[in-house]
Amino acid sequence: MPRLRFRISMSLDGFVAGPDQSVEDPIGVGGMRLHEWVFPLKAWRGPQGLQGGEENASNDVVEDWLQNIGATVMGRNMFGGHPGPWNAREPWNGWWGHTPPFHHPVFVLTHHARKSLEMQGGTTFTFVTEGIESALEQAMRAAHGKDVALAGGASAARQYLAAGLVDEMDIALVPVLLGKGERLFEGLGDKPKALVHVRTVSMPDVTHVRFARA
Amino acid sequence: MPRLRFRISMSLDGFVAGPDQSVEDPIGVGGMRLHEWVFPLKAWRGPQGLQGGEENASNDVVEDWLQNIGATVMGRNMFGGHPGPWNAREPWNGWWGHTPPFHHPVFVLTHHARKSLEMQGGTTFTFVTEGIESALEQAMRAAHGKDVALAGGASAARQYLAAGLVDEMDIALVPVLLGKGERLFEGLGDKPKALVHVRTVSMPDVTHVRFARA
Repeated sequence: MPRLRFRISMSLDGFVAGPDQSVEDPIGVGGMRLHEWVFPLKAWRGPQGLQGGEENASNDVVEDWLQNIGATVMGRNMFGGHPGPWNAREPWNGWWGHTPPFHHPVFVLTHHARKSLEMQGGTTFTFVTEGIESALEQAMRAAHGKDVALAGGASAARQYLAAGLVDEMDIALVPVLLGKGERLFEGLGDKPKALVHVRTVSMPDVTHVRFARA
Repeated sequence: MPRLRFRISMSLDGFVAGPDQSVEDPIGVGGMRLHEWVFPLKAWRGPQGLQGGEENASNDVVEDWLQNIGATVMGRNMFGGHPGPWNAREPWNGWWGHTPPFHHPVFVLTHHARKSLEMQGGTTFTFVTEGIESALEQAMRAAHGKDVALAGGASAARQYLAAGLVDEMDIALVPVLLGKGERLFEGLGDKPKALVHVRTVSMPDVTHVRFARA
C-alpha cells in the first residue's frame, strides 16, 4: 500500500519554524538553524545539481526519505510568496527556481484556484482548493503506486496529522532552542498516538526519530 | 563554581507530564510512559535500595546526573499530595516513603509555610515560601560546594529556565506522543537560548540531549 510519509526538522523545544516568517526569513527568524544539518549531505546536494557531499548516517536517512516517492503534497505557506489571492502580474512560482528539486508532481494546498505550473526537470505544481483529502487522493493517483511525501509546512502537516492520514513520520530533531515560532505538535488530538516509534538514528547535530502507524 | 543542573523526561511532542494529574496519576494520564526507560537501570535501582539492573549508555547518563549533587530543589506539585495549604492532621510527606532516594537536603517551593521534615537516610525537606531565587541560594549553601539538582516539575523548571538560572539541562527525550499534557518549553522567552547543545546519547527507548550555558 502506498503511504503518506512526512518528514520535518524540529527544534528541541518543538518549533518547526522560527517567529516572524517573511520573504527574507521564509522559515522565521532563526528557523534556518533547523536545516543546517542537511546542507552538507550528498543526498541533499544531488537533487540540487551539486556534486559531492558527506555520506554519513544522516545522509542514509535523507536518501531513505527520497526513496520511492512519486508525488509531494505541501501547504501554501511552504510554497510561499504571499498570503491571499495569487498575484496575476508577477505570479509566485515557488522558492526553487526554474528546476525545483522534486522532479515529480507536487500538489499545493491553497484557498485560491490557479492553473497548474509545469517546471523544468519533471516538477509540476498543481493547486488544490478542495482540501487535504482531495490533495492526498490526487497525489496518490499521480504517484502511480509509489509513496507520497508530505513536505510541510507546519499548518499543512498538522492538518494531515490531526486527520490521522500520516503513515510514517520522521522528525529530525535539532538540538537548538528557538524559544518561539510555529509548533508542529499543537492541538492534534489523539490521532498522532496511532503512530509508534520505529527507530532512532543519532548524529551530533541531529537526531532522527521515526514513527509509523502501529 | 557549583551549578544548577536540571534533568527531565519529555515526550517527542514536548510534554513532561500527561493530562489530568491526580493522586492516582501523579504525572498525568500516560505520563508514566516518560519514565519507563529509567526503571531497569542500575543507577536508578541503587538509590531505591534495589539490587542489580542494566548498565548501558542510559545508565551512564543517570549515574552522571547523580554525581556531585549536594542538594535538590523541586516544586510543590512534584512534592505532591494536594494543592493549597498543608493538611495539618494528615500532612503529606512526599511520594517517597520513609526513606526518600535523595539522601541530601531538598528544598520545596511552596506558597504555604511549613516546618522542615527530616526523613530517614539523610533527606530533609525544607519548605521555601520566598521564591525560586531564595530556594536556590538555600540549596547552594546546603550543598557545600557541590551542585544543586533541579528535579522539576514542569512549573518549577519553567520558572528557573525563564529566569536564566539553569546551568545545565538534560532532556531525556522519549519517543512517544502524548498528545496533550504539561509542556516544558512554553512561554520561556529568550533565556533558554543561552543554553547550547553539548552532547547527545541515543538509546532505542530514549535520547539524552544535554545543554549547558555557553
